[in-house]
Amino acid sequence: MLPDALKKLIHELAKLPGVGPRGAERIALHIITDGKNSALLLADAISAAIDEVGFCDVCGALAKKGELCGVCANPARDKTKICIVEKPLDAVAVERSGVYGGVYHVLGGVLSPIEGITPDDLKIPELMSRIKNDGVTEVIVATNPSAEGDVTASYIAEELRPLGVKATRLARGLPSGGQVDYADSDTLEMAMANRFEL
Amino acid sequence: MLPDALKKLIHELAKLPGVGPRGAERIALHIITDGKNSALLLADAISAAIDEVGFCDVCGALAKKGELCGVCANPARDKTKICIVEKPLDAVAVERSGVYGGVYHVLGGVLSPIEGITPDDLKIPELMSRIKNDGVTEVIVATNPSAEGDVTASYIAEELRPLGVKATRLARGLPSGGQVDYADSDTLEMAMANRFEL
Repeated sequence: MLPDALKKLIHELAKLPGVGPRGAERIALHIITDGKNSALLLADAISAAIDEVGFCDVCGALAKKGELCGVCANPARDKTKICIVEKPLDAVAVERSGVYGGVYHVLGGVLSPIEGITPDDLKIPELMSRIKNDGVTEVIVATNPSAEGDVTASYIAEELRPLGVKATRLARGLPSGGQVDYADSDTLEMAMANRFEL
Repeated sequence: MLPDALKKLIHELAKLPGVGPRGAERIALHIITDGKNSALLLADAISAAIDEVGFCDVCGALAKKGELCGVCANPARDKTKICIVEKPLDAVAVERSGVYGGVYHVLGGVLSPIEGITPDDLKIPELMSRIKNDGVTEVIVATNPSAEGDVTASYIAEELRPLGVKATRLARGLPSGGQVDYADSDTLEMAMANRFEL
């Protein structure tokens, strides 16, 4: 009962992350009923982003095409500290917290023996040459708190040991605003092991 | 730290239903990293849908612009039964179930004294003239199981009484696959009142 152009739009929308088939239907209908202008704004924003957005040559974070990212281009940022993240959006999240004054390095994933992802598949060689050339003194590994994230963090820490560069990892515990009864056992184990005195 | 074109894309995406600010970020990044082709497919699908998709002149369901919808255009559908829904997507959901052989009528909302929505704000006059002119014998009110949906259903049933047209409403009870302990009291009350013998 759906017109072909609508089916095609739903099909394309359903490929987006976090958008299921029902979500895609609802979004498609919104696009159609919300008036031509707002839909064309969206179509134009997609084309413009594709044309204008790229990745920083130094750290791999989001940047205007052909330019350094805002962090690498900022002389006030401490270039001796590197926060290592899996994806560009992870850097955006750390940046949003406002507590970090160093620079970033986007790995582009995590080590995974099962999926055959080795250090050379990630930006680890680039990381090592940044560390050697830029006088880096501390590396904060902010990969996800998952098995692969932990393996990747350990690997990086091992590589850094001979260089005398400090490697740290983001703390583990209960998320602020979370609830103890919803926390999984792993999180509670970490929160218990790293409990602090009041 | 985000390039302007990306901020704009995130801003437009966040207006879509069911897409929050974090979801919009994730979708925007997916669009940028998934390659130019798939992003342009999406932008084109949006433009094409805007150009080609409209609403059926008879029932208000989704249709190719200037054409009847697939249901109204189908001579095999029983034109003496009308299923009344709030929104075009509700008709899509009933159609997907495959159990209905009649036609539809999209109201475009529900009656709401609080929001000042009267029968004339909905496609109720159009409904009444279809019923009078097309030999309709039964009307199935498939508005949402909400207070407004119920009020709208009662209003329509009252209007139909003098015409001798049968008016029914979709059954209320536990959804298939649902869980009793997650059901709200209203649903359980309805399910209890409408229990059936085994």
